[in-house]
Amino acid sequence: MAEAMPTRTREADAVRPEVRTRVRPAAPDFDGWACPVPLRDHRKIVMGHGGGGRLSAELVEHLFAPAFGGELLAELGDSAALTLGGARLAFSTDSYVVRPLFFPGGSIGDLAVNGTVNDLAMTGARPAFLSCAFILEEGVELATVGRIAEALGAAARAAEVTVATGDTKVVDAGHGDGVYINTAGIGLIPDGVDIRPRRAAPGDVVIVSGPIGEHGVAIMSVREGLEFGVEVESDTAPLASLVRAMLTACPDLHALRDPTRGGLATSLNEIASAAGVGITLRERALPVPEAVANACAFLGLDPLYVANEGRLVAFVPRAHADAVLAAMRAHPQGGGAVVIGTCTADHPGIVVVNTGLGGTRVVDLPLGEQLPRIC
Amino acid sequence: MAEAMPTRTREADAVRPEVRTRVRPAAPDFDGWACPVPLRDHRKIVMGHGGGGRLSAELVEHLFAPAFGGELLAELGDSAALTLGGARLAFSTDSYVVRPLFFPGGSIGDLAVNGTVNDLAMTGARPAFLSCAFILEEGVELATVGRIAEALGAAARAAEVTVATGDTKVVDAGHGDGVYINTAGIGLIPDGVDIRPRRAAPGDVVIVSGPIGEHGVAIMSVREGLEFGVEVESDTAPLASLVRAMLTACPDLHALRDPTRGGLATSLNEIASAAGVGITLRERALPVPEAVANACAFLGLDPLYVANEGRLVAFVPRAHADAVLAAMRAHPQGGGAVVIGTCTADHPGIVVVNTGLGGTRVVDLPLGEQLPRIC
Repeated sequence: MAEAMPTRTREADAVRPEVRTRVRPAAPDFDGWACPVPLRDHRKIVMGHGGGGRLSAELVEHLFAPAFGGELLAELGDSAALTLGGARLAFSTDSYVVRPLFFPGGSIGDLAVNGTVNDLAMTGARPAFLSCAFILEEGVELATVGRIAEALGAAARAAEVTVATGDTKVVDAGHGDGVYINTAGIGLIPDGVDIRPRRAAPGDVVIVSGPIGEHGVAIMSVREGLEFGVEVESDTAPLASLVRAMLTACPDLHALRDPTRGGLATSLNEIASAAGVGITLRERALPVPEAVANACAFLGLDPLYVANEGRLVAFVPRAHADAVLAAMRAHPQGGGAVVIGTCTADHPGIVVVNTGLGGTRVVDLPLGEQLPRIC
Repeated sequence: MAEAMPTRTREADAVRPEVRTRVRPAAPDFDGWACPVPLRDHRKIVMGHGGGGRLSAELVEHLFAPAFGGELLAELGDSAALTLGGARLAFSTDSYVVRPLFFPGGSIGDLAVNGTVNDLAMTGARPAFLSCAFILEEGVELATVGRIAEALGAAARAAEVTVATGDTKVVDAGHGDGVYINTAGIGLIPDGVDIRPRRAAPGDVVIVSGPIGEHGVAIMSVREGLEFGVEVESDTAPLASLVRAMLTACPDLHALRDPTRGGLATSLNEIASAAGVGITLRERALPVPEAVANACAFLGLDPLYVANEGRLVAFVPRAHADAVLAAMRAHPQGGGAVVIGTCTADHPGIVVVNTGLGGTRVVDLPLGEQLPRIC
């Protein structure tokens, strides 16, 4: 409490000089600020800090990690791998603030289970227990809370996890948005499994488990002010059973990620950066459904940056790629699995796409999310 | 999602006929509703659902537990005791929505560590890892987030736990209240330790670890609209090391609870109800500091219902009570430990106080919290 406060200094350090020069206004005015892709040279929280992109990473790297003394956070995976009482555990948490609470293909209750379960599964862990904490806004209908709880319970049963402990807080009307949920999860990592972003290696084959962009487009299609008619449903689904099938085909999977906020582009950039490898994608191989492509063209978005909630991207040793792909395609959650690219020693830390016309473009880490509050 | 929705029925079932008769208005009008002790026959969330009293318990019992299929929730402790990979684990979660964020003696960052660590400690577990998830409101000062993160990190070091994983979400201005934090914690339960509410037994001595009511009064003293001058500071503190000292004196502690929301009265009622025992307190033995007593008299509150964040109440076999009391008094967190009553086979499920004048009064479970958003 009484400690000196180095936060401002840290924040200033985090701003790269060239960016500062480019975007810094003479006198920033944050009153009524609501832009999801904000200035970098700020003293206040902007929507982009919650977008899972570069601003979120800076907040973790320069503010939270130093304050918490975060050795484990430094690995920058979505789950921590721990050893406690002789057991190898995965531990993960996410809060869910999606708007609206119900959307085509799911609800905040589904996301609250699948999002956390999938973070655990990306370490190869078998998810076992969830905590579940609700922050309810005074005045929300009990029937709404009931529908969400039923969806959450059903999703937990489908994912074979037990909701073991919980908490409920209520905040005054006008200080919430109906329902916010936090879940934390614990899973057991099997012996011999070591799946982490930094294990991605040159030569690895990059496989995605199915069509991309559906969750984000489903949310956008019903978001206040953005309604447009598409028949896309969220892909929200638990992925631990798919990972088990993949591990049976190849116990030495190198890296896994579920590309949620910030989409596939963000996950690939994080892995490229953590492992110090380059990633080359073939644009024509990217599984973008026509409805997603159309919606993205309509809204001026890039499907590579649109959130998914039931897909994973895998870095697999070349020798095992065919076996893993076959195992994925035989699984209900991996029927649409395809190879989208390869891992290379060239251009370390950088993700590029070979376009259909023979060109190459860099796929950078976004600043924030294209659409806030997507999960 | 598409399931039939039995919530309304369940909620109606939860309303006891005699209460319904007494408090039901002809046509409840919930517009602008802000009372912390609300009607029971409602269709919307009211502040009392987050108060940790009877309304919170009903929400868990009649809405969340059936939806989640909650075998483990049914134990109604603040932590779940699990076995995973051969390890005996405690697992707990709490969200922190305290207002204001900083108060005499601490901040939301201290509470977010100590609250969850203490829930783990009440099973006898040694807290090991925390997750930490922030829901930030757009526009909150980064310096504020920084101060809170520093306080949280310092509290984690003091409690000897590692912040292992985290998450940050940002919600639009007007849909939060600066900073909400959720932490979940994992601890290791030592072999042979079995501390649960339902193990409280007739003959047990009831010991409280120090003065009561300080956290609640500290918050009230700076709460908007309630400011009054007292020198009371929050008692927020980690209790795991105190519990270890108590376990050394008596490995067979029966039940422990940290009396937070709803105060000592709520914790004692929950234990009496879970174990099917009666509890008799001696009013003159209750350690109510003069400043707390004065503030409560001024505000019309009962100190038994005021929140604590660094105290525990213990149910100890009579033969070991002196040894446990001595161990507590020798510990920095237990210097003010006193015996406040006993556990009895009479009046099962009911807590009574023998008053200084020779009378007896029943201490009931409150409906909600006397002051919302206390933690």
